[in-house]
Amino acid sequence: MNSALVSEIFAHLDELPIVDIHTHINWRRGAARNIGEILSYHYYTELLNSAEYQEGKLPLDDPEELTRVLFRGLDLIRNTVQYDWLMAIGREFLGLDPSAWQPERWREVFNLSVEVMEQPDWSERVLEQANIIRIYLTNSYDEDLAGLDNSLYTPCLRVEPFITGIEQPAERERMGAYLGQAIEQPGDVIAALDITLDAFSEYNLAYVAASTAPNVRTFPVKEEDAGRLITRLNEGSEWNADDRAAWQAYALARIAEACRARDLPFHLMVGVNRGVYQQGVPSGTDLLDSTSSLRGYDWLFNSFPEVRFPVAVLADTAGLELASAGWIRHNVYPSGHWWFANQPVEIARELRRRLDVVPAGKLIGYFSDAYYLEFILPKFRMYKFELAQALAERMERSLMHPNSDPFTLDDALELGGSLLIDNPLSIVGTSDTAAVID
Amino acid sequence: MNSALVSEIFAHLDELPIVDIHTHINWRRGAARNIGEILSYHYYTELLNSAEYQEGKLPLDDPEELTRVLFRGLDLIRNTVQYDWLMAIGREFLGLDPSAWQPERWREVFNLSVEVMEQPDWSERVLEQANIIRIYLTNSYDEDLAGLDNSLYTPCLRVEPFITGIEQPAERERMGAYLGQAIEQPGDVIAALDITLDAFSEYNLAYVAASTAPNVRTFPVKEEDAGRLITRLNEGSEWNADDRAAWQAYALARIAEACRARDLPFHLMVGVNRGVYQQGVPSGTDLLDSTSSLRGYDWLFNSFPEVRFPVAVLADTAGLELASAGWIRHNVYPSGHWWFANQPVEIARELRRRLDVVPAGKLIGYFSDAYYLEFILPKFRMYKFELAQALAERMERSLMHPNSDPFTLDDALELGGSLLIDNPLSIVGTSDTAAVID
Amino acid sequence: MNSALVSEIFAHLDELPIVDIHTHINWRRGAARNIGEILSYHYYTELLNSAEYQEGKLPLDDPEELTRVLFRGLDLIRNTVQYDWLMAIGREFLGLDPSAWQPERWREVFNLSVEVMEQPDWSERVLEQANIIRIYLTNSYDEDLAGLDNSLYTPCLRVEPFITGIEQPAERERMGAYLGQAIEQPGDVIAALDITLDAFSEYNLAYVAASTAPNVRTFPVKEEDAGRLITRLNEGSEWNADDRAAWQAYALARIAEACRARDLPFHLMVGVNRGVYQQGVPSGTDLLDSTSSLRGYDWLFNSFPEVRFPVAVLADTAGLELASAGWIRHNVYPSGHWWFANQPVEIARELRRRLDVVPAGKLIGYFSDAYYLEFILPKFRMYKFELAQALAERMERSLMHPNSDPFTLDDALELGGSLLIDNPLSIVGTSDTAAVID
Repeated sequence: MNSALVSEIFAHLDELPIVDIHTHINWRRGAARNIGEILSYHYYTELLNSAEYQEGKLPLDDPEELTRVLFRGLDLIRNTVQYDWLMAIGREFLGLDPSAWQPERWREVFNLSVEVMEQPDWSERVLEQANIIRIYLTNSYDEDLAGLDNSLYTPCLRVEPFITGIEQPAERERMGAYLGQAIEQPGDVIAALDITLDAFSEYNLAYVAASTAPNVRTFPVKEEDAGRLITRLNEGSEWNADDRAAWQAYALARIAEACRARDLPFHLMVGVNRGVYQQGVPSGTDLLDSTSSLRGYDWLFNSFPEVRFPVAVLADTAGLELASAGWIRHNVYPSGHWWFANQPVEIARELRRRLDVVPAGKLIGYFSDAYYLEFILPKFRMYKFELAQALAERMERSLMHPNSDPFTLDDALELGGSLLIDNPLSIVGTSDTAAVID
Repeated sequence: MNSALVSEIFAHLDELPIVDIHTHINWRRGAARNIGEILSYHYYTELLNSAEYQEGKLPLDDPEELTRVLFRGLDLIRNTVQYDWLMAIGREFLGLDPSAWQPERWREVFNLSVEVMEQPDWSERVLEQANIIRIYLTNSYDEDLAGLDNSLYTPCLRVEPFITGIEQPAERERMGAYLGQAIEQPGDVIAALDITLDAFSEYNLAYVAASTAPNVRTFPVKEEDAGRLITRLNEGSEWNADDRAAWQAYALARIAEACRARDLPFHLMVGVNRGVYQQGVPSGTDLLDSTSSLRGYDWLFNSFPEVRFPVAVLADTAGLELASAGWIRHNVYPSGHWWFANQPVEIARELRRRLDVVPAGKLIGYFSDAYYLEFILPKFRMYKFELAQALAERMERSLMHPNSDPFTLDDALELGGSLLIDNPLSIVGTSDTAAVID
Repeated sequence: MNSALVSEIFAHLDELPIVDIHTHINWRRGAARNIGEILSYHYYTELLNSAEYQEGKLPLDDPEELTRVLFRGLDLIRNTVQYDWLMAIGREFLGLDPSAWQPERWREVFNLSVEVMEQPDWSERVLEQANIIRIYLTNSYDEDLAGLDNSLYTPCLRVEPFITGIEQPAERERMGAYLGQAIEQPGDVIAALDITLDAFSEYNLAYVAASTAPNVRTFPVKEEDAGRLITRLNEGSEWNADDRAAWQAYALARIAEACRARDLPFHLMVGVNRGVYQQGVPSGTDLLDSTSSLRGYDWLFNSFPEVRFPVAVLADTAGLELASAGWIRHNVYPSGHWWFANQPVEIARELRRRLDVVPAGKLIGYFSDAYYLEFILPKFRMYKFELAQALAERMERSLMHPNSDPFTLDDALELGGSLLIDNPLSIVGTSDTAAVID
């Protein structure tokens, strides 16, 4: 590997503004208010709980105490990329040297962080420093978007409540309250979905999104069968695995139908087993399953050829399957590197796979999944570094490869720009974001 | 990586003649007659359909119009290795500069291609330029091989009709016509198989081959049970999944028996889900399944220890499983890099795995799967480049590695020659091909 | 890759003493007595049987004849890492040049090996030369450990007899004999387990270990249900798949309970299909399954939060799943690189994955799985070379990476030492081994 070339490409990619098509940013707040909030990110709490067992319990409601506790254990996770994100945040936004992150300096760092991060324009300063121009959100159907700054934020509707949520009485009640009448039949669920889609369209809704369990199957389900499933729940009975699968298939199809009607993409995040680790910290209880195939989505992808399906996968084992789906299916768009797969080994392999066989315009390079603005920069830089390596390698190989014409630095930067900016904006763009491209 | 060493090794490997143990070449024709035929290869039509949706419809019967349409979209797939094959074909065989592949130049390129490729000795010139000395074919049981040039071509019988085909009335009818009597019992299927094996043996049949779905299971099935399955079909009933699995297991065993009797290898290509993408172009509707184990073949491999089973896998996830089977099972031979796995990332990993743990003499390096002669050279070069890299890396590592003795350039070239020439000819060779080694 | 840096790091790692937490060393013997015993290792016999079919039969009882036969076929496996282990053994311990391993020199090598290896202090010399300071064993419950040298050896109890063994009448009989009464109920099995744990604790038992089939499920099983299962066996009935799964789940939980009571780790080696290759040599009949998930262990890991579970996986496909489990679960410790995954491609990938996302202190770097002392050095060197490469790469990347602070040579060596020495001794250490750290 030619280090100078990697650095040169990275420097160019690093100058690009950031378009982040999937985050959990709280749009009323944006940035964190202190380092305790940064450290409350499950990547840190779960790593500490793993490295030095905390019985899943950490003082999440007390940022100061959380800072103290986390500082005590940071040395245990010093080898991880997540630790590197933290160092980058400290260095870039707080001017902190790595040596600051010692247990005995926790209060000093906490106080400094409060001083800096509670400044009223802190979010703006982070956005400017990181050159972030567009952030897509994760929104609940009953969320009030009044006041949303559409010049920066683009809402995206999370649709798990309509899929797996329906089984929970509390979710049906919440949805009924939102709809203004009890959820008694499939049409009520669809009506709630329609109301939220109408409401969100005022704010330039970009897409709907769902994370799904491994090996979900999709298939046609009749409305009367779906109706019986809801009735059964309302009568106090429980669903068995077949019931659950049937409702899921029914709901996925209805959501895809709504997407088709409104020309919205349906972003799937495939393969998470929720709540499998009992002693985990909040958001630190889920895992991937290495036996997770996309096979079950065949019916959905086939039945809605007009709907774009950006797809992220949690399991590395589904990587070639996803690249191959993006290669032949016109409506599947490989999207980013998600969660347990959001780290250098997986990114490096998937990037090369996708770049070699999927039409470049179909690739959404990366999204941060961040909860606070501060994380967007280090996460994107982690990706951009892997991208720079892949592009440098492509340049070097092209000079030797018997089939290749020279792949130049300009080619590399153009391809990088497609993955990072052009494709995200064209695949899940809105009228708002269209302005960015122009 | 030492670029000079890679290039040196590649240059040596590139000088080797090509033995291609699996193609779909039409032996009556060989090369393509124009660039439209080259572009009709599903790798291009499916990528275009994926990059810019064509509803699966392309003017496949009109090479000129197809050329026009494909040229319009080529820029969308410029990043792919398949595009590189095309550039290589243009450069090597038509003298075309990459800049020729612009939408507005489609007619010029088409006309040039006709001029060059319709020359009566075109196939011979491609063969000579690419230094191709032996091509294995994919033949239907009812194909008439009269006129086959055995000095170049070696027939291989495709046996899916006997396995999955039997379920289709049209296939049973076709087979009955071939046999001269209706297919009414398992013995009729075997009889048809025997007749074709007899007929093909005149032309030095090399092996029988089948592609299979993921997770096929093999197990003993009684002839009377197989008989009931055929009767059921003939009575107009349909098979359920168990029936299908039973016939498949029965047929695989009968075919293996025939292989044993005739000392023929049985080449398996494992793991394809056929026809899963409804809007695909012809041959562009199949995909892999990441959850695909070789476990189900245990019974078959164990029951026919005398039969050689070259095995290719579609799923990257089966890569170590295949390497391990090649490592301990005497009759499993890892073979090439197939279809969705026929690209640099997968080739690079599997090559290193296989070279590190499977006895070298058991490895069939590569096959092209090509439909026209022109594709053989760029596909083999793609493989040879990865092989050159793996060998160069092996040389460099050997100088540092505590366990290794120096692995020299001579060693590298000898190993490369084994994978490319010696092993293919010894594992699936015939009396014809034996002459090549001598 | 910077070769000089890799070599420098390797040299440092190579100077570290060896702590080997999983072997099959016979503690009464230690080293081999001749090269025939070395060649009887299944890695050689199975490769020969695969490369040149021996019908699974080799003169395993006659080291001299075995040497003759194996020498004849060594050239066929010259490309493998296993061959490199052999060359390293020859060079390091017998002073043999690679050129000695020719078929015609078999007797010379055999005689030399006898001369050297039958010296009374041979084991001590191997230990000293390889700088091996601690060896963990694989012990049967009915093994008499009297005379065990605890200053070098640490016993580990293999518990398959209590899990899958129970189904075999011979195993129940053997266990009954050990217990002093017939195995008639679950409590008898537990009693046998307790007796052996008591007995082994005298010798500083380090942990219990089990290898398991792919996709084992764990779940609560009532004692009366387990009792019915044993009764059924004793009445001469056979278990079906559900019975087998239920007993397995029951036994795993009881063993974990015993571990909890005695503060012992439970080392799991996950994913082997036993006895699937009928024509294999002894110990050469097992394979991995690429569809092997850790999902089924959720209940076990959750139910015994106090028990440490070092976990090794056979399938490469379970690699990220294991790394992710180590990342969030406090009681899962990724352990080594096992069997079919014990080779450079898999080690390189898993090492990087684990180093990037699992708290470093939770990683058990390597174990040799060796049967004779001579194998420990070359196997550990194979690992240390991959580790040196990963650490060198980490150093180089850190200088360019936007998120990283410089990762120095000292950092690299400290991390290497953790994986090789500190972590193994702290995760599966005993009062004996504690002394090593101090």
